[in-house]
Amino acid sequence: MTIDEKVLPDLDAAAKTWLDRLQSALGDGAADATAELFHPDAWWRDLLAFTWDLRTAHGHDALAARIAGASSAGSVSFSLTDRPVLVEAGAEPWVQAVFELRTAVARGRGVLRLVERDGVWRAWTLLTAMDELIGHEELVGARRPFNSLEGPGRTWPEVRERQREFADGEPAVLIVGAGHSGLGLAARLGRLGVPTLVVDRNERIGDGWRNRYDSLVLHDPVWYDHLPYLPFPPNWPVYTPKDKLADWLEFYAHAMELNVWTGSELAETKRDGDGWAVTVRRADGSLRTVRPRHLVLATGVSGTEPNMPDVPGIDDFRGLACHSRDFPRGVDFAGQKAVVIGSCNSGHDLAQELYEKGAQVTMIQRSPTYVVSLAGSAIAMTGMYDGSGPPTDVADLLSASFPFKCAPEMHQATTAAMAEHDKELLAGLEKAGFLLSSGINGTGALQLFLQRGGGYYINVGCSELIAEEKIGLRSGVEPARFTPTGLELSDGSTLDADVVVFATGYRGMVETARRLLGDEIADRCGPVWGLDDEGELQGVWRRSGQDGLWFMGGNLAMARFYGKFLALQIKAHEVGLLEPRTTSKGGE
Amino acid sequence: MTIDEKVLPDLDAAAKTWLDRLQSALGDGAADATAELFHPDAWWRDLLAFTWDLRTAHGHDALAARIAGASSAGSVSFSLTDRPVLVEAGAEPWVQAVFELRTAVARGRGVLRLVERDGVWRAWTLLTAMDELIGHEELVGARRPFNSLEGPGRTWPEVRERQREFADGEPAVLIVGAGHSGLGLAARLGRLGVPTLVVDRNERIGDGWRNRYDSLVLHDPVWYDHLPYLPFPPNWPVYTPKDKLADWLEFYAHAMELNVWTGSELAETKRDGDGWAVTVRRADGSLRTVRPRHLVLATGVSGTEPNMPDVPGIDDFRGLACHSRDFPRGVDFAGQKAVVIGSCNSGHDLAQELYEKGAQVTMIQRSPTYVVSLAGSAIAMTGMYDGSGPPTDVADLLSASFPFKCAPEMHQATTAAMAEHDKELLAGLEKAGFLLSSGINGTGALQLFLQRGGGYYINVGCSELIAEEKIGLRSGVEPARFTPTGLELSDGSTLDADVVVFATGYRGMVETARRLLGDEIADRCGPVWGLDDEGELQGVWRRSGQDGLWFMGGNLAMARFYGKFLALQIKAHEVGLLEPRTTSKGGE
Repeated sequence: MTIDEKVLPDLDAAAKTWLDRLQSALGDGAADATAELFHPDAWWRDLLAFTWDLRTAHGHDALAARIAGASSAGSVSFSLTDRPVLVEAGAEPWVQAVFELRTAVARGRGVLRLVERDGVWRAWTLLTAMDELIGHEELVGARRPFNSLEGPGRTWPEVRERQREFADGEPAVLIVGAGHSGLGLAARLGRLGVPTLVVDRNERIGDGWRNRYDSLVLHDPVWYDHLPYLPFPPNWPVYTPKDKLADWLEFYAHAMELNVWTGSELAETKRDGDGWAVTVRRADGSLRTVRPRHLVLATGVSGTEPNMPDVPGIDDFRGLACHSRDFPRGVDFAGQKAVVIGSCNSGHDLAQELYEKGAQVTMIQRSPTYVVSLAGSAIAMTGMYDGSGPPTDVADLLSASFPFKCAPEMHQATTAAMAEHDKELLAGLEKAGFLLSSGINGTGALQLFLQRGGGYYINVGCSELIAEEKIGLRSGVEPARFTPTGLELSDGSTLDADVVVFATGYRGMVETARRLLGDEIADRCGPVWGLDDEGELQGVWRRSGQDGLWFMGGNLAMARFYGKFLALQIKAHEVGLLEPRTTSKGGE
Repeated sequence: MTIDEKVLPDLDAAAKTWLDRLQSALGDGAADATAELFHPDAWWRDLLAFTWDLRTAHGHDALAARIAGASSAGSVSFSLTDRPVLVEAGAEPWVQAVFELRTAVARGRGVLRLVERDGVWRAWTLLTAMDELIGHEELVGARRPFNSLEGPGRTWPEVRERQREFADGEPAVLIVGAGHSGLGLAARLGRLGVPTLVVDRNERIGDGWRNRYDSLVLHDPVWYDHLPYLPFPPNWPVYTPKDKLADWLEFYAHAMELNVWTGSELAETKRDGDGWAVTVRRADGSLRTVRPRHLVLATGVSGTEPNMPDVPGIDDFRGLACHSRDFPRGVDFAGQKAVVIGSCNSGHDLAQELYEKGAQVTMIQRSPTYVVSLAGSAIAMTGMYDGSGPPTDVADLLSASFPFKCAPEMHQATTAAMAEHDKELLAGLEKAGFLLSSGINGTGALQLFLQRGGGYYINVGCSELIAEEKIGLRSGVEPARFTPTGLELSDGSTLDADVVVFATGYRGMVETARRLLGDEIADRCGPVWGLDDEGELQGVWRRSGQDGLWFMGGNLAMARFYGKFLALQIKAHEVGLLEPRTTSKGGE
């Protein structure tokens, strides 16, 4: 989003007056102040500060209920941090103010947007977000440790080894998965003094990236991708190669003093009182049972269970058929006929990889796909995550201040601008028969990611190969059955193949919970990922249907920002500020 | 230094007018403007911007010469960056202004201090420092690489391996020593696009720290210790344990994509045309000859050659006698009699290590020593490097803006404040017979470091052991000769010993140059370290007496800041902006 901002001196008073009025309405639980404060179509997104949850209230009824309920947060105060700015983007200009807030138990920040209609400035959007629990602040800056040694004559490696092994106590939190989500959350929890263990089945931290195809680079630019506390240095490339990210993750765990057991899997997990008894099989084959109060699954937004369509006749097929997860990277497919089923990121990436290794590749596209180029995709970050924007924490706050369902016309406009940027690319794809989508109601990749967990391709070269017909394409068809020499498709046509790869995604986080924790707990969790009625993501970064079980995920930016709220909720549980609750959608 | 700063609106004009007048004087080479601009005792420190060297002009004659000579920098402009502040510290308050500058070839920054005497504001101190060469800026921020892969299908580890091995070209610079100095300089040069190889004889980067005694932590707080580009995260401990620093250095080299050959030594080094032919013996025993234009010794401020006093009778001694460098860490000295000769940092550290391992230790103090506690020592950084100060780059600039010989009364006052803080500790030491010094003219550790490269101890526990007589002490004596069972001292007394360690320091950087490069080149270098007549350090970070040979060193903060100027000089040579010159003290 490109925005033109002007600093207008008289906006101070408008924002300050509004915040004062909200403060007093909240103090009195005065729901009748709603219409005076908010336009009828206004949004108030709250991240823990007033709801102890991630919640979005939209419209006067919901806003009135929020004001009435907010008195439970105790005495509240607001103060402006920077001068408000006038933002002219789209039909109505808005006054945007970043502010600090304080409740009885926490400090936080927020973003207010005032819009003038009929001569009256009322709120269009409000974000309130918790930053820290008073008395339980992060051990950083002036609160950092004096040194990392606990006693004389003991070295840092020895001290760390005992911590990492939990030689002197149990972890309060066990995180499954040492990717960017799990590590970032562990870093947040560590700074809050919550003993945290991370287990990962890979031999080395980062192997989840190292083991992928050679040419993979991140699809988001560096400014969007920083991990908490330890930003990439200023010479870091715009698009990070996978091995460089892998090594950074490994070092991150070391530098941030995270306790990670690699080559380790959950052998058995049971509820144990208010917590869990988790038996971990470690790299050397030994078993160790730990008893954390919190279990966090950070095994990727889509989980780890392959989504494998049941195509009959697979036993007759003389070639190799596998899911993308099991694709044998090291094997040479030069000169062979390859079929890739699926046309989202992994399908395109695999098709490109096979092509570059000399295979004759055909992609089967089952349904329309949203495609955007790397440069087109960066348009969404202009002025925010492009090196010219505000500090990362402010950019994160401003981004979060638009609820996911708010202002679809802005997403549509950005998506249209990207399509204009990519028009040659898209025309080439269409000419080759590729079925294009513009996302849900023309809103592009973000909403597809939030609502469906996929359905798009950020082009890093495969679209050109398809447009130039270097990679073959069959669109609008499904694989019907295997033949001994290939596939029969739903339109009755056939396709010869030596290798068939199903780039058909994964079955979601709940299915990972099912494998690890059984049906009863998995069924209790309800959906994880996808937007709920309010427009908040379900089950992730917030209480799930199972006490003590949490789901953590998202791309690097989402994990960086929302992981903080998950860490705060766990800390709040640990210090008795937040009670267990069996649904993430309880009343305010 | 604790300072009280007030922002006064009318200071803007004073600073701006002064800078305008300097600008016009420099434009005309108008040396006769000197007395109008500067007080008679004023200082102008220049770091490359006007002198292509590190130079300090003091007093009207030198300042007039500087103004007359500065016209060689071409058209010059100055502009204020922040509002000037009034600083009340000591007898005369000063107006302090940070500004940007631009010459024909470079951009830079500076600090101006105006003092009012007889109703006239004139400069007391001026710093002008080059930041970047126009057209040769660092490849950071918006200039960062798009990604780190050079061709399709090649992975980052493969790309880096070819770079590290210099498979496709020669290094322009060879740095000897992969400590913080060498690595920080390599990072600076890398960002300037100068191909740089670092060789280190240790097996792993950081082993220089790992191989030292267990309890070692840095003696400076974290805010003072950041490396360039990649600051420590906000949870990093105030005092870094040696192994944690070692691992950070190792990762730093990896993350910053530095080309380091470990386990490697210089087998032969010769001048070769305008550069060097250096044969490196690598970890696997193979030899590789590289031809860099620049050779940088970054092997520590004191070099690597032990300073071993010639004490007669050593062959008769039945115990172990060695220099601290060769002290066998792994050996158990419990119950043995140990004598440590030397009373500076390494002497105290070794004495403490031996004591903690159960030895009966006596320290021989040959001359008075300056002692300050860790907390006392941090007083010098209050408001600058304590987490409450300005960003590191501004703190560095402000620190550098006081020439080393300027305002000794400020160093004396700080040293006195530290002594007041430490009075119990110091009284205890005196009572035990320890000979205390307050440094050169009462100016404490910094001037000892700059002028003598040592002569002090920053107490991390050994002083208490001496005061409590847990470690024995013989003061004001020298070892006269070895006996079969110990030492005879210069006062005729004797001391039994199973082990005698000489913590007597190193012979300096020139002697390392002598070992590696021979007498002719070493003799040409002149002194390295120690202050010259102007009060600048000799030979380090600036041209030495030998073209193409540079010395790099200093504590973490000095290496971070001054390494930039060395990198800029090398880059300027590479692009033809700076000619070879055989002395670092040529005319301006």
